[in-house]
Amino acid sequence: MQITGDMIIGSQLVRGNAGQQQAYNPSTKAQLDPGFGLASSADVERACELAAAAFDPYRALPLEQRAAFLEAIAEQVLAIGPALIERAQLETGLPQARLEGERMRTVTQLRLFAKVVRDGRFLGATIDSALPDRAPPRPDLRLAKIGLGPVAVFGASNFPLAFSVAGGDTASALAAGCPVVVKAHTAHLGTSELVGRAVQRAALDCGLPEGVFSMVYGDGRSIGQQLVGHPAIKAVGFTGSRQGGTALMRTAASRPEPIPVYAEMSSVNPVFLLPAGLAAGGATLAQGFVDSLTMGVGQFCTNPGLVFGLASAELDGFVAASTEALAAKGAGTMLTAGIHEAYNSGIARFGSTTGLTQVARGGEQGVGCAAQAALYLCDAETFIGNPDLQDEVFGPAAIVVRFSDEQQLLRAAEGLHGQLTATVHAQAADQAIAAKLLPILERKAGRVLFNGFPTGVEVAHAMVHGGPFPATSDSRSTSVGATAIDRFLRPVCYQNVPEGLLPEALRDDNPLRLARVQDGELKTA
Amino acid sequence: MQITGDMIIGSQLVRGNAGQQQAYNPSTKAQLDPGFGLASSADVERACELAAAAFDPYRALPLEQRAAFLEAIAEQVLAIGPALIERAQLETGLPQARLEGERMRTVTQLRLFAKVVRDGRFLGATIDSALPDRAPPRPDLRLAKIGLGPVAVFGASNFPLAFSVAGGDTASALAAGCPVVVKAHTAHLGTSELVGRAVQRAALDCGLPEGVFSMVYGDGRSIGQQLVGHPAIKAVGFTGSRQGGTALMRTAASRPEPIPVYAEMSSVNPVFLLPAGLAAGGATLAQGFVDSLTMGVGQFCTNPGLVFGLASAELDGFVAASTEALAAKGAGTMLTAGIHEAYNSGIARFGSTTGLTQVARGGEQGVGCAAQAALYLCDAETFIGNPDLQDEVFGPAAIVVRFSDEQQLLRAAEGLHGQLTATVHAQAADQAIAAKLLPILERKAGRVLFNGFPTGVEVAHAMVHGGPFPATSDSRSTSVGATAIDRFLRPVCYQNVPEGLLPEALRDDNPLRLARVQDGELKTA
Repeated sequence: MQITGDMIIGSQLVRGNAGQQQAYNPSTKAQLDPGFGLASSADVERACELAAAAFDPYRALPLEQRAAFLEAIAEQVLAIGPALIERAQLETGLPQARLEGERMRTVTQLRLFAKVVRDGRFLGATIDSALPDRAPPRPDLRLAKIGLGPVAVFGASNFPLAFSVAGGDTASALAAGCPVVVKAHTAHLGTSELVGRAVQRAALDCGLPEGVFSMVYGDGRSIGQQLVGHPAIKAVGFTGSRQGGTALMRTAASRPEPIPVYAEMSSVNPVFLLPAGLAAGGATLAQGFVDSLTMGVGQFCTNPGLVFGLASAELDGFVAASTEALAAKGAGTMLTAGIHEAYNSGIARFGSTTGLTQVARGGEQGVGCAAQAALYLCDAETFIGNPDLQDEVFGPAAIVVRFSDEQQLLRAAEGLHGQLTATVHAQAADQAIAAKLLPILERKAGRVLFNGFPTGVEVAHAMVHGGPFPATSDSRSTSVGATAIDRFLRPVCYQNVPEGLLPEALRDDNPLRLARVQDGELKTA
Repeated sequence: MQITGDMIIGSQLVRGNAGQQQAYNPSTKAQLDPGFGLASSADVERACELAAAAFDPYRALPLEQRAAFLEAIAEQVLAIGPALIERAQLETGLPQARLEGERMRTVTQLRLFAKVVRDGRFLGATIDSALPDRAPPRPDLRLAKIGLGPVAVFGASNFPLAFSVAGGDTASALAAGCPVVVKAHTAHLGTSELVGRAVQRAALDCGLPEGVFSMVYGDGRSIGQQLVGHPAIKAVGFTGSRQGGTALMRTAASRPEPIPVYAEMSSVNPVFLLPAGLAAGGATLAQGFVDSLTMGVGQFCTNPGLVFGLASAELDGFVAASTEALAAKGAGTMLTAGIHEAYNSGIARFGSTTGLTQVARGGEQGVGCAAQAALYLCDAETFIGNPDLQDEVFGPAAIVVRFSDEQQLLRAAEGLHGQLTATVHAQAADQAIAAKLLPILERKAGRVLFNGFPTGVEVAHAMVHGGPFPATSDSRSTSVGATAIDRFLRPVCYQNVPEGLLPEALRDDNPLRLARVQDGELKTA
């Protein structure tokens, strides 16, 4: 399949004429052909208008057709074959196996949302029967959720498949009945085009209204902002930097009609080593930590960038074992030159922070934008006295903080910003402190995990990949897992609406065989 | 029970020393004793700190205790007896029967949330079993929702009981496990004190942490803004003007940690008279409309301020019958002098709008801040050419818009702002146009109702009292009905958390007997 540099606007391939951009190979630091034509304002306008026009016909389709569309996208992504993996490798420096795994994750995610659509629980179907004899009479009230409207999706650099053009935001928005306009990430333009065409083919094959999916190329600060400001757009999905996410939040909040932004931004994912957990973990724990820290060159949202422990011989042992494990890790190529520079700036900031000691570095030799892993150590006073040590350094760097006692550790936990994850290594003997820590971590993080590491986010029903600000812009949501669909829904109440006009989910004969809340009680079909 | 003018800060009665304010009788235009001491910054600080400290212990209580607390509040509100109704009458000008009905609504609402808490469906309990043999192994993942944290609630002037101190926002926030700090509305300070003390007594009787409830007096622009800006506050519930609501939205969005605001603001609640529906309704329809328009002196969020119909003899007949019905309605006393002035300004604005014809007025004679109802007529061009005719005039005023054809009416529907409700009067013969109208109205309103009037909002499971901006700040939510609790919740995922530390909702033995999603399937207990 040829990559042409064209955008996808409805059923058309459109050559953007507002400048041109090439993809970049972070391993060779060379530009890649072809040039991609960037969107003009008129292109964005057209994509948004088509999306608005597609909303009603798309959401009116039977759920089965919506589910089939998601499955068709999965098939079309697979049908691209090795060309997708090859192009993604060139554009991201990520290894083949990782990208193949990510493709499978993308496909699995689309299929999960097809199941979510068929199950119909996301509709929240609820019926309160009329009470004509009550004074005053109660009308017939029925609630079901509908999509918010067209969604703007910003592809993420660090998941060129699973959180990009046909990734979690797109899949969950389409599942909710919302058309999608993607702003492709400049870090993987060719990968985006391949996947965008796959979605376009699936839409055509399924006979969907053409505006259900479009994809534009352009700069986030201009085209991205225009997209978020467009009146047709009713919600935003974004994974990226805190700076980028908060800029979109400001734009969305200052629109004549403010809209929700789901921005997954920054998290240092603290790991708490409780005494018995640390003692039981030993060198295995250190190896697991370093593997998690350096996996994907540390370019995961859930990368463990902060370790809290109580001063002890065991903690010294953990640092020593981590040092050894880290030295054995080669320097990996980062996704983009910008991310690589930002990582090196972050490391430089750590290096110039008084009281923060570098205790380990990873291997130095690497290709292109190669990042050398780094581990630092400090005491509680240094950590508390330098609030910017909580700011994420995106990449394979972490800080171990040594606390003198339990109270100090709990206070520092209380001072943490919002996180995607918080990890506890504990054994039965740690029960007392773990029980004090857990309520704090529930308030701080979207996912609390024991005796593991935060990288590796399951696409499942119970997953929460979210958390209080600045981890995300909206702690009420998750961007991974089945309930990610909830982000793009709003409830509508139908009062005394004639049976023939009711949504299927709410009809008396329950044709979708949904479990519904009937007069306050959950009734299965 | 004596009204002293004291605030409620945790278990204390506190006399505010930042000035004093008296309540106002809108019927006599006289001030009422006693003076209420207004909150200083330190008072707000103290209330917020207590709320923050109460959050973990309060949310850790068994659901049964949380439910019992809500029921105890209901009992304590009833126990105030006639003194509550008498004081509310003096402060609001609302009639006794209306206030007694509203008290029952308040009590019913608290009891509904007690049931919601006991049912536990709001927790969204979801379990994905570990798959240790999968490569890579899947961990045990369990999701349940927890409260967002302390909630700031702004009492509404137009529901001095049901949407004030112990009203829907407070009840749903407490049900979600969130402490509440109320900013009492200055329009019913004495009523607020009586109810605030009832909540305080319930909290004491139930042995709850004292910060679970506080209430302060003060100006929205100073004390209200301080409250919304306080780091301990994690969400806001507000019912009031668009100006007030958007001011809180701006403050919440510009905090270091932005928080959700649930502001229910402004809606003109369009009523569509489709041809057969209009013909079938006749004079009964006009009477029903005028009753709904003038109920509570038009001071309902769901007041029908806009009527759309096709030019016809039947529409002329509707206007004529409405004119007659309106003339028979006396002038009612509005809630406050400010609301009365704003109503008169709105009427003056209508009066000076070229193309807008006044066709009817209600009776002129009334007591104090009495509002004379008003009905206007215009054609489609005037309506479309004057976008401010969509702005709510709070009170008993409405505009009938006469369209020349169906397409024009549908286009005007498409141009409507977000609404709490949209009403359709239709019969079987209107099926074709109703089917075109409904998808538009689903996008515009939180509740779509047929052959009725929008006033009268049931406290039920399927109710949605919400809608797209500017009806509310967050179309994903409802402020009335069982699912209002969802506003104050966020999901947390527990990964491999030891059984002894898991929330009850997620334990293997399912002690709460919840229906849970288990490996993607809904399982009843």
